Amino acid sequence: MIKVGIVGGTGYTGVELLRILARHPGAELKVITSRGEAGTAVADMFPSLRGAVGLKFSDPKDAPLGECDVVFFATPNGIAMQQAGGLLASGVRVIDLAADFRIKDIALWEKWYGMTHASPELVAEAVYGLPEVNREAIRKARLVANPGCYPTATQLGFLPLVEAGCVDLGHLIADAKSGVSGAGRKAEIGILFSEASDNFKAYGVPGHRHLPEIRQGLAQFSGKPAEQIGLTFVPHLTPMIRGIHSTLYARITREEDFQTLFEKRFANEPFVDVLPPKSHPDTRSVRAANTCRVALHRPQGGDTLVVLSVIDNLVKGAAGQAVQNMNLMFGLDECSGLSQVPVLP
Amino acid sequence: MIKVGIVGGTGYTGVELLRILARHPGAELKVITSRGEAGTAVADMFPSLRGAVGLKFSDPKDAPLGECDVVFFATPNGIAMQQAGGLLASGVRVIDLAADFRIKDIALWEKWYGMTHASPELVAEAVYGLPEVNREAIRKARLVANPGCYPTATQLGFLPLVEAGCVDLGHLIADAKSGVSGAGRKAEIGILFSEASDNFKAYGVPGHRHLPEIRQGLAQFSGKPAEQIGLTFVPHLTPMIRGIHSTLYARITREEDFQTLFEKRFANEPFVDVLPPKSHPDTRSVRAANTCRVALHRPQGGDTLVVLSVIDNLVKGAAGQAVQNMNLMFGLDECSGLSQVPVLP
Amino acid sequence: MIKVGIVGGTGYTGVELLRILARHPGAELKVITSRGEAGTAVADMFPSLRGAVGLKFSDPKDAPLGECDVVFFATPNGIAMQQAGGLLASGVRVIDLAADFRIKDIALWEKWYGMTHASPELVAEAVYGLPEVNREAIRKARLVANPGCYPTATQLGFLPLVEAGCVDLGHLIADAKSGVSGAGRKAEIGILFSEASDNFKAYGVPGHRHLPEIRQGLAQFSGKPAEQIGLTFVPHLTPMIRGIHSTLYARITREEDFQTLFEKRFANEPFVDVLPPKSHPDTRSVRAANTCRVALHRPQGGDTLVVLSVIDNLVKGAAGQAVQNMNLMFGLDECSGLSQVPVLP
Amino acid sequence: MIKVGIVGGTGYTGVELLRILARHPGAELKVITSRGEAGTAVADMFPSLRGAVGLKFSDPKDAPLGECDVVFFATPNGIAMQQAGGLLASGVRVIDLAADFRIKDIALWEKWYGMTHASPELVAEAVYGLPEVNREAIRKARLVANPGCYPTATQLGFLPLVEAGCVDLGHLIADAKSGVSGAGRKAEIGILFSEASDNFKAYGVPGHRHLPEIRQGLAQFSGKPAEQIGLTFVPHLTPMIRGIHSTLYARITREEDFQTLFEKRFANEPFVDVLPPKSHPDTRSVRAANTCRVALHRPQGGDTLVVLSVIDNLVKGAAGQAVQNMNLMFGLDECSGLSQVPVLP
Repeated sequence: MIKVGIVGGTGYTGVELLRILARHPGAELKVITSRGEAGTAVADMFPSLRGAVGLKFSDPKDAPLGECDVVFFATPNGIAMQQAGGLLASGVRVIDLAADFRIKDIALWEKWYGMTHASPELVAEAVYGLPEVNREAIRKARLVANPGCYPTATQLGFLPLVEAGCVDLGHLIADAKSGVSGAGRKAEIGILFSEASDNFKAYGVPGHRHLPEIRQGLAQFSGKPAEQIGLTFVPHLTPMIRGIHSTLYARITREEDFQTLFEKRFANEPFVDVLPPKSHPDTRSVRAANTCRVALHRPQGGDTLVVLSVIDNLVKGAAGQAVQNMNLMFGLDECSGLSQVPVLP
Repeated sequence: MIKVGIVGGTGYTGVELLRILARHPGAELKVITSRGEAGTAVADMFPSLRGAVGLKFSDPKDAPLGECDVVFFATPNGIAMQQAGGLLASGVRVIDLAADFRIKDIALWEKWYGMTHASPELVAEAVYGLPEVNREAIRKARLVANPGCYPTATQLGFLPLVEAGCVDLGHLIADAKSGVSGAGRKAEIGILFSEASDNFKAYGVPGHRHLPEIRQGLAQFSGKPAEQIGLTFVPHLTPMIRGIHSTLYARITREEDFQTLFEKRFANEPFVDVLPPKSHPDTRSVRAANTCRVALHRPQGGDTLVVLSVIDNLVKGAAGQAVQNMNLMFGLDECSGLSQVPVLP
Repeated sequence: MIKVGIVGGTGYTGVELLRILARHPGAELKVITSRGEAGTAVADMFPSLRGAVGLKFSDPKDAPLGECDVVFFATPNGIAMQQAGGLLASGVRVIDLAADFRIKDIALWEKWYGMTHASPELVAEAVYGLPEVNREAIRKARLVANPGCYPTATQLGFLPLVEAGCVDLGHLIADAKSGVSGAGRKAEIGILFSEASDNFKAYGVPGHRHLPEIRQGLAQFSGKPAEQIGLTFVPHLTPMIRGIHSTLYARITREEDFQTLFEKRFANEPFVDVLPPKSHPDTRSVRAANTCRVALHRPQGGDTLVVLSVIDNLVKGAAGQAVQNMNLMFGLDECSGLSQVPVLP
Repeated sequence: MIKVGIVGGTGYTGVELLRILARHPGAELKVITSRGEAGTAVADMFPSLRGAVGLKFSDPKDAPLGECDVVFFATPNGIAMQQAGGLLASGVRVIDLAADFRIKDIALWEKWYGMTHASPELVAEAVYGLPEVNREAIRKARLVANPGCYPTATQLGFLPLVEAGCVDLGHLIADAKSGVSGAGRKAEIGILFSEASDNFKAYGVPGHRHLPEIRQGLAQFSGKPAEQIGLTFVPHLTPMIRGIHSTLYARITREEDFQTLFEKRFANEPFVDVLPPKSHPDTRSVRAANTCRVALHRPQGGDTLVVLSVIDNLVKGAAGQAVQNMNLMFGLDECSGLSQVPVLP
């Protein structure tokens, strides 16, 4: 059994990790830390876990994280970069669900995240944890940067087209919609029920931190420098708890059988489901499961392709993908602990 | 492996049975019928089941239900009573998720359900599938009447008090709130999103079909005739998909240590969780899981007890409890296939 | 034109006052204060008011509240009691939407609200602003204590029965459900969208501050001391923005034509609508309007009456009722500015 | 007072017309028809209208529509085209909220709507009721084709850019999101609460009926033939009752001060509000009001403009715009009856 630690387990990605790991046949939760809740039983904070998780939160200072095989950081940005080095030195592998190790260009990261990076030397080593692209590197990684939720849905939707080089990379558009849990479990006015319910809005249109992450990924897929990737990324807040729906627009530069292109690219991917042509995946079709479903359209036979890509932002967009990465890193079945059937309705 | 058939799999209890059974280690889905959808792949109708359920809907006329070990009826009221007899005669066991076999008093059933009962002789044989009360009878049953959703939450909440005989049985009150999926997957105006969202209302106050079912159960618990059970039952429609919250009021007639009474009564029940005193269970703490959570209050130390009882109406209130009954009937671990951790948030 | 000031206009009752007063034919908004937002245009904070409200928030220190005819306090508890005296001395009338002046028993207030009352001498003078009961006193009042949301729905529902003395006052039950805006516009985890959506729970069952307020009202209606009013009050949080649904239970002690009793009692009330027998009012039928709709049931002809009472917590339960009180205090048509038709769907 | 008739008042646009007209100072509701509900009091069907609307539904056969000054059709597509001619001949003016008269190209209309047009001769006469473009023609019109909801939000958002000719008309993208009320008050599975809540999806990507309507409008604005307008239109279903958010993408072909362009174009428009640069309008900021709010972005200073345009689909997207058109047709103040302040929260 893999011994697992979680740093910062009081947010939504933390509780989702707990939900998944509590039933994982090959992993055992050993430690979970929280500065604010040390000593509290996890199940007192999240009664949904009564009977499933017996742990208490530990104070980060005393927590025996060094005895774990792997530690997940479900913390705000800027924490993992301070602690990962020490853990790695102790032989513990690290999966960061925050953004600390996602962007290879340190200056770019510092600009978007507004802080100085504490471990730039680890950034180069870190593997971006998108198994559909970096599976082999993840298997060997000590440090995995788990992708963001928007980047997961968006990169998987664009992946076959960008790899094939058959669309205009200078004018890609990602119109993305997220459930409110994507904003985290923070006491903020804007995500109160009475503010976010029965309401819809865009946000961060001038610039969202997931933009450079997505662009870096698309550049990798294309083999071109990031400067050549023109991406307009508009995120929206949607009155639902979970789910991301990324609607992607790309202009065709070379004709292909696009449906086949998608089906072939993802034929062996256990967690990407290409729907039949002209399908409309809904976010609930992946609710609480680690699946990305993708559908392809070419409206009126024009020169613009529309890709619809849905994930559960807390599963394939966070905790589920993190467990998928753990499975790869430790040689387990990639699907281990991730066989939950989506909850519908 | 138990061979399982489902009659009427296009409603919410049907798709929930599929979600649970698709991952059940001891059962195998063999047949699912639907008059309207014969020939359609189940996963085409419910894309959440892509990759998890490979079956197609069969026409009820041709479906080899007789080859199953057990058949679930996830049909409207009035169907199972016509088909159960034949299946039982073929040696197939039957679990009816509708109301056909729940009420022992045929005349009472016919009054509330507005039809003539087609198999009154089977009603006497049928076991009311509330394992916390009838576990041993269920183990031996050929025919189980799976309880309604409101009755499950309400009976479990009242159970310790009524068995102990320490409250006024003539003036019980159950103020119950249900998510909209409790109304089924039917094309009706009143349960449209635009009608039921951001809205709250009572319904069926003059009389709801679950009233006689609950009263029959309470009478059984108390050992008294149903006429002596005075119950005011007020159901409400709540703008959420899943969940029932039953708020129960009972007047104390004899002092007890009520918290201990509850804890002892449910000490060995795998699916009833008695919370610490003064807790407030929320419905999401059981979302997508087979658990009933119960909390007890005695406001201001007065003579009125308040019990808060929550379930997921589609799981412990329908499909999950049906699988729990199946497990009992076939000698499996009662919890088999029912270890899902609630989905929160 | 009545010159109006608002203290604390950044919460939901504040913005609702603005919505109503912006179109009031007899009142003119002169001042609105906010410590945190001084200098900000109201419409920058609430874009829904662009084009309707041109004011900026003033710093409370400088705000010319003394030049107003009436000042509304849309503040947290404990503010109005410090400032009302000075305003009254300047000849300004005061309507407090918080709880400072609602409870006549100072010791009781201090116990439930956990602070020392700053102006106990004003409590005696203050008129409880429930026009259906205290209309004449409100007309003459300098200081009005605007009722709470639960108390408004609950008291109006019980009013005819308690006045008539035909139910058991020792065992009244109010099972009340509120939309999330009732919890205010505060950055708290429990009322985040991802916590409160698709979820239902009771809260405050051991004791909620509206309990003594309701009990005081019922005592007044009955002409009996508050100690003789036995009330079990259970509030619940419902996943909707606006609306309160109070389900009331009372045991009959004397037969009456209850429907007629209700219809007569409210025959001349412009903002209480008694529905036909066996109706089920929904909260959206009063959304954004100053109406309370009430329906009466006697299930199965038993001895328990069920009253269903709905209001919009921000209108009849707060800002609308406050404007109704202002209209009365200044001799305007009681309905002035309050003719909004409920928004449905 | 203008005498008003409504044909088909049981849908959402019908009840919204009633809400607005019930308080309109210059119009009087005389007749409302419904085949299915003849004889029913309107307020029995929509209790929100109790006390505001005293009418009963009339049978269409007997309804004295000929005595009205104006008749609104709040019917499914295909009804108004059969009845408008007769009413016009009687001197009654007609405003059709459905699509019968929106598309000038009869063959195109017949293709998208799947029926033969019953009054092609009236199509030429009909004025497309977008006051911001066709105000003068509307003043003189006998027959107004009230725009669709998506077309209103989308056309207003694109209008300044397309008129100015400064973007690539061959590659416009409209990613539009609608609340569920946009699908109407019909008993259909897909818009049940349990299907549409906590869920998000695109629909109609291969082709939606609003596409030719929008394209026709954009062609008019540009002065070019519709074939030269390349528009990719992707509508999405959002779990909220009301509201449309159209996110528009256009590639710049000529530099302009785009913010100023928008502000000037709408400077005198009472119902279009251009927000300051980099704003993010939310749909609730126009809830229940006749306003369109628009904001402009140019992310990262690139060559792609993003316009965010929000309306309430039932008001500016249907009933409110219809009343605005009525006001113009009858020489009333254009804003008469339309001064409702948006309901927030």
